[in-house]
Amino acid sequence: MLENKSTTSLAHLGEFGLIEHLTEHIALSQQSTILGVGDDAAVIAPLDGCQMLVSTDILVEGTHFDLAYTPLKHLGYKAIAVNVSDICAMNGTATQVLVSFALSSKFTLEAVEEMYQGMLLAAKKYNVDIVGGDTTSSVSGLFISVTALGFVKPENIAKRSTAKINDLIVVSGDLGAAFMGLQILLREKAVFLQNPNTQPDLEGMDYLLERQLKPEARQDILQLLEKLAVKPSSMIDISDGLASEILHICKASNVGCKIYEEKLPLDPLMYDTARDFNLDPTTCALNGGEDYELLFTINPADYDKIKGNPNLTVIGHIVEAEAFCQLITQTGHQIPLQAQGWDALKK
Amino acid sequence: MLENKSTTSLAHLGEFGLIEHLTEHIALSQQSTILGVGDDAAVIAPLDGCQMLVSTDILVEGTHFDLAYTPLKHLGYKAIAVNVSDICAMNGTATQVLVSFALSSKFTLEAVEEMYQGMLLAAKKYNVDIVGGDTTSSVSGLFISVTALGFVKPENIAKRSTAKINDLIVVSGDLGAAFMGLQILLREKAVFLQNPNTQPDLEGMDYLLERQLKPEARQDILQLLEKLAVKPSSMIDISDGLASEILHICKASNVGCKIYEEKLPLDPLMYDTARDFNLDPTTCALNGGEDYELLFTINPADYDKIKGNPNLTVIGHIVEAEAFCQLITQTGHQIPLQAQGWDALKK
Repeated sequence: MLENKSTTSLAHLGEFGLIEHLTEHIALSQQSTILGVGDDAAVIAPLDGCQMLVSTDILVEGTHFDLAYTPLKHLGYKAIAVNVSDICAMNGTATQVLVSFALSSKFTLEAVEEMYQGMLLAAKKYNVDIVGGDTTSSVSGLFISVTALGFVKPENIAKRSTAKINDLIVVSGDLGAAFMGLQILLREKAVFLQNPNTQPDLEGMDYLLERQLKPEARQDILQLLEKLAVKPSSMIDISDGLASEILHICKASNVGCKIYEEKLPLDPLMYDTARDFNLDPTTCALNGGEDYELLFTINPADYDKIKGNPNLTVIGHIVEAEAFCQLITQTGHQIPLQAQGWDALKK
Repeated sequence: MLENKSTTSLAHLGEFGLIEHLTEHIALSQQSTILGVGDDAAVIAPLDGCQMLVSTDILVEGTHFDLAYTPLKHLGYKAIAVNVSDICAMNGTATQVLVSFALSSKFTLEAVEEMYQGMLLAAKKYNVDIVGGDTTSSVSGLFISVTALGFVKPENIAKRSTAKINDLIVVSGDLGAAFMGLQILLREKAVFLQNPNTQPDLEGMDYLLERQLKPEARQDILQLLEKLAVKPSSMIDISDGLASEILHICKASNVGCKIYEEKLPLDPLMYDTARDFNLDPTTCALNGGEDYELLFTINPADYDKIKGNPNLTVIGHIVEAEAFCQLITQTGHQIPLQAQGWDALKK
């Protein structure tokens, strides 16, 4: 993605020049932001009755993304979205982000600007202020580190450790599409490497590609739950795959679970594409990762409030720890759930 | 530094196993820490009458450090210290940190443990809780990102933008020693590469090496200033060199300054070693960087309170913007101060 850019060298601007250039158009909109970029630290005012949430995630070239098929603007957007998603997963409202990156010399000013444009776009979409960060060079590749801050009323915090036996397990949106989007991109990259004159065959795959390249934090689901007067008893966002995440909740809450294969929300395009790739759609949904949907538990008494909502699917329920974590297949078999999702150290 | 470690592969543990292993001995001591490592975000309670400070810094192998001469434990310590230093530079108290790193496959579990030991040591020293982070793999090299959180009473915040004309410019400790420590390490690395059988000649250089490898955040200076009832009118920490930092203050405050060469606090060992290296000690002090001392301005009426204190040196004063930023040399000449310090994008 870097070849088409013009080539203003970053060394020409220097670190402070680059920071000044990128941050000059930042608008601050949060009342809690007292001081943003430009000092040794940002200053955040507390919000009445709230506690602060803070989370950080890194994205590494070659591990988390491949610039052969990742537009820099999408990458910048994604870096913000996945961090906002962590604040959502605590049932909080993201308010500020800090954005750091280390760049190798292959990156031009125009390339960095494009990435930053994506970050600004996501900041606007999620209504978070960019209040700080760090910019430096790397010997090889691009590293992005984002820290997100947010607020939450203590009584609303949804931890991983508070799922109760008999709670229903609910997931937002659909699962596995981001993973299938990645498979398509990897296939087209392989084709391109074999024959650089081929045009990529991406037709009709928009939904899958968007799920991979431009995931969204599900702030809208929190608003929906508030409107429905449903308070999750526990919550996590799906970054590494449903199986991995439900195991986190069960371990932290010292409970087990039953997940029903037939209940998993699968997008038809994901389903068909998985079949075309000779992949099992259920496996994609369980272990694909990067969906950034919210996975949460609710008191069974709240079932009527969410029943039939197209954004929410009940996929199982919490059981005692001794029953372990089980997938009930469409043929009625019980098989132990295993975290076979993405592990950055095992790839 | 990596060759002597035993070799437990990180892939064996996996990302979650590694995080669990590293964080199992974390003790939380801050009353504001409600929830630490182990959920989607940490939860921090506000402190009465305080605002929150947040700052982030990245350290990149090959840019900020060289593992040929940087012990991993020192590196971990330094990563925390330099971030705590940013909170100090706002006149605040650091309370929490989030610690992320991306590692290439050359790192064993034992190597990561050593780095983390340094982080834990610094967290204990500065009384900050490790409440989160992220761990992943990199294609090449080590990348560390730390975010520090802290609290400050709004009336105590020391920004860069609030220096006033006639304010005195004060610096803590001494300057240039960290840079000279780096020169010694670079020399010994070059000798070693020529002849791997030589022993490094580091005798008597402990102070310089420690300043480079294990810098400290000057929390003690803030306590001293509080005791002396001196409130800095502006402040910054010296990471990129005195000249660069005073220019930041002057630009943000829209003022100029006069810095007196004869007043610069130089350690005798730094001075002699610079001479041995045919380097100008003043240049080392002005542009060396990584001192992590505090540079601040005070109202001239406070001069008597700090006069003669061995930890604090008045090196100049603030003048109107039209007079620019000048160094007054020992021979009485005025020369414009220039930021020739370290710039991560220009190296």
